[in-house]
Amino acid sequence: MFIKTDHLMAVNLLEGYTAKMIHTDQLSVMHVSVKAGYPLPEHQHPHEQITNIVEGQFEMTVNGETKICQAGDVVVIPGNTPHSGKAITDCKIIDVFNPPREDYRKLG
Amino acid sequence: MFIKTDHLMAVNLLEGYTAKMIHTDQLSVMHVSVKAGYPLPEHQHPHEQITNIVEGQFEMTVNGETKICQAGDVVVIPGNTPHSGKAITDCKIIDVFNPPREDYRKLG
Repeated sequence: MFIKTDHLMAVNLLEGYTAKMIHTDQLSVMHVSVKAGYPLPEHQHPHEQITNIVEGQFEMTVNGETKICQAGDVVVIPGNTPHSGKAITDCKIIDVFNPPREDYRKLG
Repeated sequence: MFIKTDHLMAVNLLEGYTAKMIHTDQLSVMHVSVKAGYPLPEHQHPHEQITNIVEGQFEMTVNGETKICQAGDVVVIPGNTPHSGKAITDCKIIDVFNPPREDYRKLG
């Protein structure tokens, strides 16, 4: 299946965060755009998450450890692990989840 | 876990294709660099694959359907589905696999 994310509806995740989402039976892939300065409050979920920074600088905190991530950096967040963040600049991020995010599938 | 793909060893997948790989218990994420003109011969595997084009133009054929993909395009390839491709330009691609690619995990 060929998908142009340009043609997908952007879902507002929270203020400053929008996503184009692909959900399969096994995975969710989210192409996330973040505006500079907007925080991602601490949260956790049972899904494993792999965050791929494509553009920009994003400060990420996982289990109390904080790093500034940039293009080419990857953050592996095991399930049920508290994480939070903040966009230092505008960012493009590709987040991968297993199992898929059924909570988001309902949105779009 | 914070990973700088710049610090990972690049694995040669085939001529013109190198990858920085992250493998977890559930997923493989591969940051693939492709040189213009190099073909990806038709193959298949039981793993579901989600291909995210980050830079460049890549001609992809899945189950006999061919499209030229570019930044922002996503290709969902179900398990056991024949696929092939060719880099039109130099490309950066993020490939996601579930389950993880144990065949590649052995390589590094």
